[in-house]
Amino acid sequence: MTTVTTRTVTYPADGLTMIGHLALPAGADRRPAVLIGPEGPGLNDFQRRRADALAELGYVALAFDINGGRWFTDPQEMLAHTTPLLASPDRMRDIGHAALDVLRAEPRTDPDRIAAIGYGTGGAIALELGRDGVDLRAIGTVNATITGRPGEAARIRCPVWAGVGSEDPIMSPAQREAFAAEMQDADVDWRLVVYGGALHAFHHPPVDQTVLPGVGYHARHAQRAWSDIVGLLAECLPVTE
Amino acid sequence: MTTVTTRTVTYPADGLTMIGHLALPAGADRRPAVLIGPEGPGLNDFQRRRADALAELGYVALAFDINGGRWFTDPQEMLAHTTPLLASPDRMRDIGHAALDVLRAEPRTDPDRIAAIGYGTGGAIALELGRDGVDLRAIGTVNATITGRPGEAARIRCPVWAGVGSEDPIMSPAQREAFAAEMQDADVDWRLVVYGGALHAFHHPPVDQTVLPGVGYHARHAQRAWSDIVGLLAECLPVTE
Repeated sequence: MTTVTTRTVTYPADGLTMIGHLALPAGADRRPAVLIGPEGPGLNDFQRRRADALAELGYVALAFDINGGRWFTDPQEMLAHTTPLLASPDRMRDIGHAALDVLRAEPRTDPDRIAAIGYGTGGAIALELGRDGVDLRAIGTVNATITGRPGEAARIRCPVWAGVGSEDPIMSPAQREAFAAEMQDADVDWRLVVYGGALHAFHHPPVDQTVLPGVGYHARHAQRAWSDIVGLLAECLPVTE
Repeated sequence: MTTVTTRTVTYPADGLTMIGHLALPAGADRRPAVLIGPEGPGLNDFQRRRADALAELGYVALAFDINGGRWFTDPQEMLAHTTPLLASPDRMRDIGHAALDVLRAEPRTDPDRIAAIGYGTGGAIALELGRDGVDLRAIGTVNATITGRPGEAARIRCPVWAGVGSEDPIMSPAQREAFAAEMQDADVDWRLVVYGGALHAFHHPPVDQTVLPGVGYHARHAQRAWSDIVGLLAECLPVTE
C-alpha cells in the first residue's frame, strides 16, 4: 500500500462550521480529485475511510460534512435537519460548493479533474453541483435518486451513475423512474443500478444507533456498489491521463 | 496476449444441427467455463469474439448456436424463429443443455465451475438453465429481462446480473419490473443495470442487415455492459480459486 496523508479541514457552509476529512495520495504531484458526500446522519469514520481508500488509488479525496461536525444518532433529529435540506437545492449547492472550494484549494488537486460521489443526502448534493453547471468528470450516487428543479439537469455534462436498493422504501420505484426520466429528458449519459433485495442505506455497515424502517445493510451489494463507484472513477476520472 | 485456441463444434439441439464456437485459453489445465448465448439473429463473429476474449482472460468459453448455423438477416424471418422459441422454456432448455453438454465434455472445462451469459434470446436461454436447476456460478444477461414459468426462478441459486437499455421498447419498463419481481420473489441474488438512452441490442455494433425499430448500437454502454459482464465473472467465477 502507498502512504496516504489525511487532514481534518474546517470551513463554513450552510450557516455551520463543517469538519471534513481530506485524504492525499503519496507523492507531490497534482492528481484528479473526488468529493465524497455522506448520508443524512453525517460524516463518520466509514465515509472518511472511503476518502482514504480513494487516496490509496491515487486520488485526492475530500469526505465532506453536511451537519457541522455532528452525527445524528436520533432518526427524528436527523430527519429534522435533512428533510428541509433536501428540499432546498440552494442550501445543498452552498454545502457542495464550499466543499468543492476546499478541494480545489488543495495544491495536490488538479482543479480541472474533479468528480463527485455521494450517499443519500450527500449524493443529492453531488447531483445539485451538476445541475448547477459545475464542470465535473463524473457524478456517482447511491440511494439518491432525487430529482432537481425542472430543466436544470440539462447542465449536467458528465456521466451520471446511480445505485439504489430495489426494496428501498425511501427511494421508491416511482422516484427512481422520475429520476431516470429527468436524466433521459436532459440527454445526460446516465446509468441506474438496482441492487436486488437491498434496503435504504444498504451500503453502510450497522452503526450503534436507532435505524429507520426500511434501512438495512447488505454486505454483498455494499461491496458491489463500492466496486461500481471505483469503476466509474476508473472510466471517467483515470488517475493518469 | 496469451494464445487462444478455437474450434468449431457441431451438435444437435432443437431439431437442428448447431454450430458453436469453442475458445480455449493457453495451457492444459482445467479452467472455469462460460456459455455465451447470442441474440435472435444467431451466432456471428461478434459473439464468437466474445468467446475469444473470455479465453484470453483464462476461461473456456463456448459461444453457442440457437439457429442451426443460420444468421437471419431478415427481421421477419428472425422473429418467426425467435418468437415461438422464447415462448417455449422447454425448447430453450434443450438448446441450453445441449451447449452445456458440449462445454462440459471439453477436457479443459472444470465442470463444477460454469457460468452462463447471453444476449437477448441467448440471455433468456441462460436464465432458463438457471430456472431448470442447473448448478451455475453466475447468470449474466443483456436485453433479456424475460420472466419464466411461475415458481421456477426459485431454482436459481447463483447471482443474476441483468443489463437493459432504458429506451428499449422490446424489453419494456413493465417487463423489467416483472423480471425484477420474479427474481426478488424467488429470493435470487440479483442486480439490474439500466443503461440510460440505450435501445434494444445496444451492445451490438451495426451489421449489414435491416434492423427492427427500437434497435440501435450505443458504443459507450456496449463497452460498459461488457465490462460489467467481465466484472460479474471476476466476482462469481474467478479464474483461480
